[in-house]
Amino acid sequence: MTCVKIAVSGKGGVGKTTIAAALIKSFAETHQAVYAVDGDPDACLAAALGISREESARIKPVVEMGDKIKSISGEGVFYTLNPTIDDRSIDEFVYRHGNIRFMRMGDVKKGGSQCYCRENTFLQALVSALLLDKDEAVIMDMGAGIEHLSRGTARGVNLMLVVVEPSLNSVNTALNVKKMAADLGIADIKVVGNKIRSDREREFIEKSFQPGEVLGFVNFNNDIWEKSMDQDSACASANEDLLHGMREVREKILGEAGGS
Amino acid sequence: MTCVKIAVSGKGGVGKTTIAAALIKSFAETHQAVYAVDGDPDACLAAALGISREESARIKPVVEMGDKIKSISGEGVFYTLNPTIDDRSIDEFVYRHGNIRFMRMGDVKKGGSQCYCRENTFLQALVSALLLDKDEAVIMDMGAGIEHLSRGTARGVNLMLVVVEPSLNSVNTALNVKKMAADLGIADIKVVGNKIRSDREREFIEKSFQPGEVLGFVNFNNDIWEKSMDQDSACASANEDLLHGMREVREKILGEAGGS
Repeated sequence: MTCVKIAVSGKGGVGKTTIAAALIKSFAETHQAVYAVDGDPDACLAAALGISREESARIKPVVEMGDKIKSISGEGVFYTLNPTIDDRSIDEFVYRHGNIRFMRMGDVKKGGSQCYCRENTFLQALVSALLLDKDEAVIMDMGAGIEHLSRGTARGVNLMLVVVEPSLNSVNTALNVKKMAADLGIADIKVVGNKIRSDREREFIEKSFQPGEVLGFVNFNNDIWEKSMDQDSACASANEDLLHGMREVREKILGEAGGS
Repeated sequence: MTCVKIAVSGKGGVGKTTIAAALIKSFAETHQAVYAVDGDPDACLAAALGISREESARIKPVVEMGDKIKSISGEGVFYTLNPTIDDRSIDEFVYRHGNIRFMRMGDVKKGGSQCYCRENTFLQALVSALLLDKDEAVIMDMGAGIEHLSRGTARGVNLMLVVVEPSLNSVNTALNVKKMAADLGIADIKVVGNKIRSDREREFIEKSFQPGEVLGFVNFNNDIWEKSMDQDSACASANEDLLHGMREVREKILGEAGGS
């Protein structure tokens, strides 16, 4: 497995988006292109990556990509996806930010208008079809909870990274995610423990999973909490401790990927 | 408006379930029957109410209720719903816990099997059709984020109660919820501020909404955090400060309901 396609998942509020953003940044240090996909219609991955609301609003959600690709390639939607991404003809769906290529699944809809099934189906097809070079990666920030799993949105990723905090509810969600990700045929399921304040909390998470499943821990950071009212949410993922932790997680992921 | 039908909503991790459980308990002090509906397939409302995993697993999800009601009434699904709930013939879908009648929307599904559209549609129809007496109430704990709003699951409730914590992301979600709930024709949209640690945080939330929109605040409680690793999650909603706060919120809701 040389292909890095990661979905970041977990219970609402555990810090998925902050962890995903820091992981994306850490991969952007070693990889030429990191596709950062916001798979949550209640989105804030862009902000966490330091992409402004205006900039992220300018790009079209990937659900609208199908027709465009068809019109370029004149054939099936996905077979020629990578060439067209490379020749910048679908730049309206991709916001470039250094080595990061940000995409988002869908827009906020009108209340009572419809579900996000179409968006999830398209995203699944897109991520499955992406052929990655060795220096490319895909990291998706999934919606809270488990519906993206029952829908199979992350089918086609190689690694499901489940973020947990030291609470029984978040561990229970992670255990559901593990089971459902296995149903999807996702080869590898790993855990990151977030918001750790004590050894007891760290041990609680370690004991809840199999040996080797927990790739790393991130300490609770009061700074991130304090700054969460500020416009500049990017400060959370720019936190040096967090980035350092995610570099270690990246190396573990790449080590396993190279070895298998 | 004498009919109390409330949906509790907000960004993942803000404390929706804890707030919903405490509100349900406070209504159970003054109302004969409080229908407590877990509208999140990644569910933990039962635990927060002190209903064990085994007990909640024994009852069937309401999505399976349709055929049963039809077989009892011999006609349309919803017109005769209340009588049948009252005569206990659909007890397999309702767990009675004091004045609380707990129901859950759906089960955890197999990964990649399907979405929760059917469950959401049924729940919407169920809640809209429920005719309540003055001493009855419905309180639904919704899934994280906004898809239950784009789906219109809460259409038919009278009050959308949005839980926020002092973070820009949670306020942005609440502003989306407000807009989408208005699209659904929900008459009343109110806010509860949770996890407050300072006057600055309280003011941040107050300033983010219209005067009168914020019904109350709940202080950050380290006890709830500390105990979140324990099996007995019910302790969170049993916290006396929280219950006291929700009693005040209840009185404001009933005051407004009586006056309109």
